[in-house]
Amino acid sequence: MCIKGTTEAVNRHNTAHAHEPAFTRRSFLKFGAAVTAGTAIAAAAPPLPALAATGGGRITDLTHRLVEAFPSFLGPQAAFSEVAFDFDTAGFYGKTWTISEHIGTHIDTPGHFTEGLALVDRLDPRTLVAPIVVIDIKDKAAADPNATVEPEDLVAFEAAYGRIPRRALVAMNSGWASLVDDPDAFRGGVGFPDLNFPGFSIDATDWLVANRNPVGIGVDTMSLDPGNSATFDVHVGFLGTGRYGIESLANLDAIPPMGAQAIVGAIPWEDGSGSPCRVFAIS
Amino acid sequence: MCIKGTTEAVNRHNTAHAHEPAFTRRSFLKFGAAVTAGTAIAAAAPPLPALAATGGGRITDLTHRLVEAFPSFLGPQAAFSEVAFDFDTAGFYGKTWTISEHIGTHIDTPGHFTEGLALVDRLDPRTLVAPIVVIDIKDKAAADPNATVEPEDLVAFEAAYGRIPRRALVAMNSGWASLVDDPDAFRGGVGFPDLNFPGFSIDATDWLVANRNPVGIGVDTMSLDPGNSATFDVHVGFLGTGRYGIESLANLDAIPPMGAQAIVGAIPWEDGSGSPCRVFAIS
Repeated sequence: MCIKGTTEAVNRHNTAHAHEPAFTRRSFLKFGAAVTAGTAIAAAAPPLPALAATGGGRITDLTHRLVEAFPSFLGPQAAFSEVAFDFDTAGFYGKTWTISEHIGTHIDTPGHFTEGLALVDRLDPRTLVAPIVVIDIKDKAAADPNATVEPEDLVAFEAAYGRIPRRALVAMNSGWASLVDDPDAFRGGVGFPDLNFPGFSIDATDWLVANRNPVGIGVDTMSLDPGNSATFDVHVGFLGTGRYGIESLANLDAIPPMGAQAIVGAIPWEDGSGSPCRVFAIS
Repeated sequence: MCIKGTTEAVNRHNTAHAHEPAFTRRSFLKFGAAVTAGTAIAAAAPPLPALAATGGGRITDLTHRLVEAFPSFLGPQAAFSEVAFDFDTAGFYGKTWTISEHIGTHIDTPGHFTEGLALVDRLDPRTLVAPIVVIDIKDKAAADPNATVEPEDLVAFEAAYGRIPRRALVAMNSGWASLVDDPDAFRGGVGFPDLNFPGFSIDATDWLVANRNPVGIGVDTMSLDPGNSATFDVHVGFLGTGRYGIESLANLDAIPPMGAQAIVGAIPWEDGSGSPCRVFAIS
């Protein structure tokens, strides 16, 4: 485990492995599909009652600045830009980006891990504006970097703050957002499979799907599953119900546990498995 | 003028000119800077009163699907994707994009045409949630593809619908959004400088800045200035006041002229002159 590494070490790793395919994931994923076969997977999106109005006017930006060096899941840099037009030559300024669909604060679609389910250009916009609730697991995450949101955390949350509304975006606040400027620390390692950070358990997302019909889940870490997951249960089992996930959320400490409205500005690019997105909360 | 061309013609043009720099813009822009020198340019963002709550719960997506073939200003294709991970090999699906900051429904920042002003990662989030008003110029745009929003259109709008609120996003509805699937028609030509479509006049944006303090303007065409502009007055003069513009908005017919709230989901990537963005209206 490598929670406190250095940027230099990551850079060395990235240089060494930049062109190495990450296909060792395949066997893990096949195994993951098997062990979560008991999870109900429905292709249909959740039903949509009328939307609640946003309550107030305070805007909180739940989005990290997307720097080129933003920590990636696999390790190597995953966002590159170059100046295409500059003031001296063209009279204006603009860049071109070469970028993974899964870098920065971004969305994972149902079709990212289950073939045939919705991609980012086919999500129902009404699911992208939703009440957001924030489940704080900072205490247990401080003790165990691979801590997970469990059903009992959801029950405890409801005892403290009231019932999680239907169609909510249910977000985990593990405290990890503060580590984002140190890729090794944010990843808890140098890149897959050397990763350690908090996430959701499949038991928690199964509980939400069965009992609270969320539109999606969100995490302040780089993956919905905890870093040490070899089976990607939540990517397979929760996204497979037709719902979405948001990874690398920022500023969850700045919004109330209950009562804010989230707007998920996913880019509807063609057949995208996900996209960087701007996420705001209004409270 | 070439409003009704064919996709084939554009493709031939793109193939022929894909690697040709567009630096003929430079002289136009230098000229543009000269003729708009009388326009007040302030680097400071507009002051921000408290935000109004959104009134209701109806979500309208003001964003076009960002297909790879989305019409570009210069002509050649400006968005490319490739599959980086597929189900057979990796067990999941994901793509990598190489993409202009100015394609699809996207934002132009103050720093796009004026060196030193705010870029997309430094915009105040409170300017990205704003009342949106829709100025309908479909009638005159049907008669003249280079029609512009003029101060008298704003005055007429206010006579019909009431005063444009402070900090609004003021959007032009020219009817052009319906042409987006035909790049030649949407551009009104094959690419700069062969372009013909509606936009704002600098007189209109000067009027707004002087009298209504908008956060930004939006258009349902691919540029804030009309297609036949050689001087980019609005890009220079309006963006130069520290305000932003949104280009290629969709579905403006589906929201009320006054009373909706817009959320502009610009991607805060590093030093970006703009970005594709998801724009929703809540009404």
